[in-house]
Amino acid sequence: MPRFARRLKKHEGTLRVEAFSDGVFAIAATLLVVDLKPPRGAMTGAQLVDALVAEWPTYVSYAMSFLYLGIIWAHHHAVYRLLKRTDQVFLTINILFLMVIAVLPFPTAILGEYLGERGERHRIATLVYTGTLFVTALLFNALWLWGKHERRLIDDDLDERVIRATTRHYLVAPIAYALAFVVAWWAPVAAVIIVLAMALFYLLPSELLQSYEHREPRAHADIAPDASRA
Amino acid sequence: MPRFARRLKKHEGTLRVEAFSDGVFAIAATLLVVDLKPPRGAMTGAQLVDALVAEWPTYVSYAMSFLYLGIIWAHHHAVYRLLKRTDQVFLTINILFLMVIAVLPFPTAILGEYLGERGERHRIATLVYTGTLFVTALLFNALWLWGKHERRLIDDDLDERVIRATTRHYLVAPIAYALAFVVAWWAPVAAVIIVLAMALFYLLPSELLQSYEHREPRAHADIAPDASRA
Amino acid sequence: MPRFARRLKKHEGTLRVEAFSDGVFAIAATLLVVDLKPPRGAMTGAQLVDALVAEWPTYVSYAMSFLYLGIIWAHHHAVYRLLKRTDQVFLTINILFLMVIAVLPFPTAILGEYLGERGERHRIATLVYTGTLFVTALLFNALWLWGKHERRLIDDDLDERVIRATTRHYLVAPIAYALAFVVAWWAPVAAVIIVLAMALFYLLPSELLQSYEHREPRAHADIAPDASRA
Amino acid sequence: MPRFARRLKKHEGTLRVEAFSDGVFAIAATLLVVDLKPPRGAMTGAQLVDALVAEWPTYVSYAMSFLYLGIIWAHHHAVYRLLKRTDQVFLTINILFLMVIAVLPFPTAILGEYLGERGERHRIATLVYTGTLFVTALLFNALWLWGKHERRLIDDDLDERVIRATTRHYLVAPIAYALAFVVAWWAPVAAVIIVLAMALFYLLPSELLQSYEHREPRAHADIAPDASRA
Repeated sequence: MPRFARRLKKHEGTLRVEAFSDGVFAIAATLLVVDLKPPRGAMTGAQLVDALVAEWPTYVSYAMSFLYLGIIWAHHHAVYRLLKRTDQVFLTINILFLMVIAVLPFPTAILGEYLGERGERHRIATLVYTGTLFVTALLFNALWLWGKHERRLIDDDLDERVIRATTRHYLVAPIAYALAFVVAWWAPVAAVIIVLAMALFYLLPSELLQSYEHREPRAHADIAPDASRA
Repeated sequence: MPRFARRLKKHEGTLRVEAFSDGVFAIAATLLVVDLKPPRGAMTGAQLVDALVAEWPTYVSYAMSFLYLGIIWAHHHAVYRLLKRTDQVFLTINILFLMVIAVLPFPTAILGEYLGERGERHRIATLVYTGTLFVTALLFNALWLWGKHERRLIDDDLDERVIRATTRHYLVAPIAYALAFVVAWWAPVAAVIIVLAMALFYLLPSELLQSYEHREPRAHADIAPDASRA
Repeated sequence: MPRFARRLKKHEGTLRVEAFSDGVFAIAATLLVVDLKPPRGAMTGAQLVDALVAEWPTYVSYAMSFLYLGIIWAHHHAVYRLLKRTDQVFLTINILFLMVIAVLPFPTAILGEYLGERGERHRIATLVYTGTLFVTALLFNALWLWGKHERRLIDDDLDERVIRATTRHYLVAPIAYALAFVVAWWAPVAAVIIVLAMALFYLLPSELLQSYEHREPRAHADIAPDASRA
Repeated sequence: MPRFARRLKKHEGTLRVEAFSDGVFAIAATLLVVDLKPPRGAMTGAQLVDALVAEWPTYVSYAMSFLYLGIIWAHHHAVYRLLKRTDQVFLTINILFLMVIAVLPFPTAILGEYLGERGERHRIATLVYTGTLFVTALLFNALWLWGKHERRLIDDDLDERVIRATTRHYLVAPIAYALAFVVAWWAPVAAVIIVLAMALFYLLPSELLQSYEHREPRAHADIAPDASRA
């Protein structure tokens, strides 16, 4: 089978899984905003401004979760780019992963409700939130580890060093969110800072993402076997 | 027409139907979470934890329905992979099928409301829920039976044994959900266990899904007629 | 330019417009269900059943609107299949059309609220609902008439008779919904029956949809210029 | 690499980003309608009509925001057509851009709540609304400026004049929305008129959109290298 056909086939094989996943990501991200309701009962303009400002914990939670979803969506996409096919176990892990992604508006709403205060309820909201992120990171790693184990689902000519770098890169997330979960018992604000730091970490150019650049020339060759024929 | 072009054509023919279906699946799955609201009125941390724990029937209903939607989505996808084209009756059944899929958040919310108690209301909620799953399974089978009857819409070179295995595999669902519906009159918990068992059944590797593996070599040949030319 | 490349180009040209449209259709259809809420306050099982049964006008409105959206989506898809490109006016009409599609959950909820009673409010709800369908049908016709006028956006080799049949076929809708709107003043139930009859009319095999079958052979030739080369 | 393969590759490279973006646009647009609720408590038909008419500010806000989202979606699409690839900074700006797009139902609901009155609250609602549009326009320009700077992400053979015209065309938006924001302090209605005027401006055929027409012949050549071979 020529490389072009193989590529199209691969594309077809994962296309609808990716479409379904994209849908869940996009909807979960957009549903976050459903909790933002225009304040009612504000009599004067000053009261309206106060009411809007008082909702800041909801805005922070919304922004943090949207950023988180955007970034994990990008990495979900990156993993799919390395796959040559999927199997049933992978699809099952993917469903469980999406289940936790879709549930994220719930812990986000809880955090938005209690982020603005100090005390017990703030701590519990942060524990629920970081706990959810931890489970998401675990399932994301399960997806990758299942796919890369003995090159089960990944491209044959993918460099072993890229695989190892990817594995290391993604293992940071569950460790950091577990840390945030533990820290949340004593210092919920510190836990939130860890979550934001992780967002920055996965946004920064990394070994993993550099490897994509390096792959480009190979990819070119991959789909252009006809060039030699022209 | 070369096989590659035929494949692209087929792809085009069902692409938007699949996109619309994927959208409905993804949104229905994500809307399930809209019923999860942060508890209000909890004064202390302990009360908040209690209120969160007390919502467990909602979590169970959510997880069960999300899993159900994920699995039936995967099988909907599997059926489309076997199709070479669609017709008007198929599209009409597909709309009715999606109508019931989209309504699922409603029985899920009813079940989440009453799953945690014993008695009449629990039984009625379970009847509504299993009844909806039964109708979904009926319409799914109608889709497949219409498509496979006299090979109306399916690939010409699809093995007759694969068709028969698929038919048998999917007929299990309406029978099991009808059973769950009947059982729900006496033992709602047993009905819920049947629903979860069906999820496992359709997740396990099956004759049907193995057949996909077997088809791969054929598929390779299918889109690589150029290989002989190269 | 070979026909295959032209086809791919066309596909690319309308792909994202169709994806955006599909998204709006799928979400509007799925949001219809947001109005279905589990009844609260039912003390006994019998009361719960009564409360569920009492919501029948909501179920009827939901089913009618979902069916309507599914069918108009299919015909929107059919029109795009006849297009070879889009232009700015077409895209603008498409945005206005989608705006009314996305608003449909609102008149559906109004109808669901008052369909079960007799009198003034029922009549007004039916007027709002049929009025919305009338505007949708007008914009749908505007889309088609703009595209087909002097073959502005449609395939060059599309049979003139197919174009005329399509125009006639789609003109039935605004006329019927205008009729339903007028009838709603005296007999709201008759207006609802007209809406359901239109759904059946657009589901039945028609001259327009038969023409697609006839086009198939041409389409085969269209994307298979390589056949002569093989 | 032949041009056809390059085109397919480009397509693949931005496909899922566009799918995710389309999803967010479509859902944000459709969620706008969630604020439209059937009026309750209307005793008579006349009261129902009054209640429906009294919601006009919500309808105006909905229509304005839907139109806005439809137009900015179309231009987002137009920018992606000029891209040959994406990079990490571009994706990050895109996530921030989509974050503000997804939040739009919130300022829309605020505007819908207070558009119908005169005074402080109306002014504040208009400030929040135009402020959000201003941020959206800034991020949209950031996307384009990052991509076009030193032709970082855009097609190599894109005419320099097209790039300059595009830059000028998109710079109008943040300036106009900044103006609307300032004007909103004294005359909120004038600010709303500026927003509507901008919608018209971006709907009108422009130098930018004409350039697409001019590009068509080049695009033809681009994907039809085989023509010379046939």
